[in-house]
Amino acid sequence: MSLKLYYAPGACSFVPHVLLELSGAPFEPVLVKLHKGEQRTPEYLAINPRGQVPVLADGGENINQIVAIVCYLDAKFPQHGFLPRDGLARAKGMELLCWMNNTVHPTFTHVFRPSTFAGEEAAQADVKAFNARRYAGLLGELDAIVAGAAAKGQAWLTGDKPGAVDAYALTLCRWSGFAGLDPTTFTALWAHVQKLAAHPAAARVIEREKLQLNLYKAS
Amino acid sequence: MSLKLYYAPGACSFVPHVLLELSGAPFEPVLVKLHKGEQRTPEYLAINPRGQVPVLADGGENINQIVAIVCYLDAKFPQHGFLPRDGLARAKGMELLCWMNNTVHPTFTHVFRPSTFAGEEAAQADVKAFNARRYAGLLGELDAIVAGAAAKGQAWLTGDKPGAVDAYALTLCRWSGFAGLDPTTFTALWAHVQKLAAHPAAARVIEREKLQLNLYKAS
Repeated sequence: MSLKLYYAPGACSFVPHVLLELSGAPFEPVLVKLHKGEQRTPEYLAINPRGQVPVLADGGENINQIVAIVCYLDAKFPQHGFLPRDGLARAKGMELLCWMNNTVHPTFTHVFRPSTFAGEEAAQADVKAFNARRYAGLLGELDAIVAGAAAKGQAWLTGDKPGAVDAYALTLCRWSGFAGLDPTTFTALWAHVQKLAAHPAAARVIEREKLQLNLYKAS
Repeated sequence: MSLKLYYAPGACSFVPHVLLELSGAPFEPVLVKLHKGEQRTPEYLAINPRGQVPVLADGGENINQIVAIVCYLDAKFPQHGFLPRDGLARAKGMELLCWMNNTVHPTFTHVFRPSTFAGEEAAQADVKAFNARRYAGLLGELDAIVAGAAAKGQAWLTGDKPGAVDAYALTLCRWSGFAGLDPTTFTALWAHVQKLAAHPAAARVIEREKLQLNLYKAS
């Protein structure tokens, strides 16, 4: 078995984790316990010097960066349509994936770990609250995108099979609970999350990562 | 002429701008004056609802997100090697491109426009200073990557022709001046920037965008 995925439960490594389960290919999921700091051990830093998950190991090489991993898996398993195949459809799928990755995802990171972006405690509190509001707006945008795809009769966000952006949408929606947002208020997005969670491949990952999808606690 | 690039001088639209010049294909560069707020006009929001550059228009469709545009141009002009062609080499090239896009680039945005990430003035000042230090660290990482490629005898970062990450490296290095950093202290990176700037395709873009490469002012 040459494919190995380093993942942490509930992290964005969920995306390639689902794609690997969808592929049907054998792979070894390797749990990295972030809360125990395993991503900062010399062993893990040799795999990814930036100390992040996911990492996909294949053929003796370690690939990090989620978008790079998604494109690599898409090229390796083209029959599964993890991204649209060609031309403008692919470009629009990549556009959505990259927006999730460079805008929605890091906005959440400001909420989850504001010390990455500001020094003083007061500034960190500002960054956390400010970006929780931005995150609500971005999930609203994502909700509208999901509703638009459903209105056009698309089964999944980029085609007739679940793909990378469907899995990323679940992760981003699930994180809403950590930002004090009720995921069920993003109606179309939440329905889409439920639909993906019921898919056998995603269900296996949710089970392995022991994920609760709705983390919201009313205050 | 069907290809049209919406760009702003010195913005990350520099990357597809250089690729289009490298392609040799006819295209129409459309200047968007960000300082005059042209990105927020109804006309521009119809092209990109997020009010950002770059946008690549082709075949009646508008593609935004720099990584999506790079992949689209790479597929359209495969003979130019804007990214490595296949497999692990491509994955490592994508990894570098995505890191530039989701980590280095947005760290600079915190310095350039901290009001995107924090509310109060004091918090914005904290975010600006904090991320200027992070930016110095990230450009140091990029400098080491460039030095490593040069040590291996690679002419360009991802192959024997200038590609997407070479152009992005120039943009990120140029921005150092806005973060109070002297770009010439990143020795390998600065040499690489000079080399790209001397390439006829990049030189045409630098001329059209009227770019000064070293913006650092000693205080």
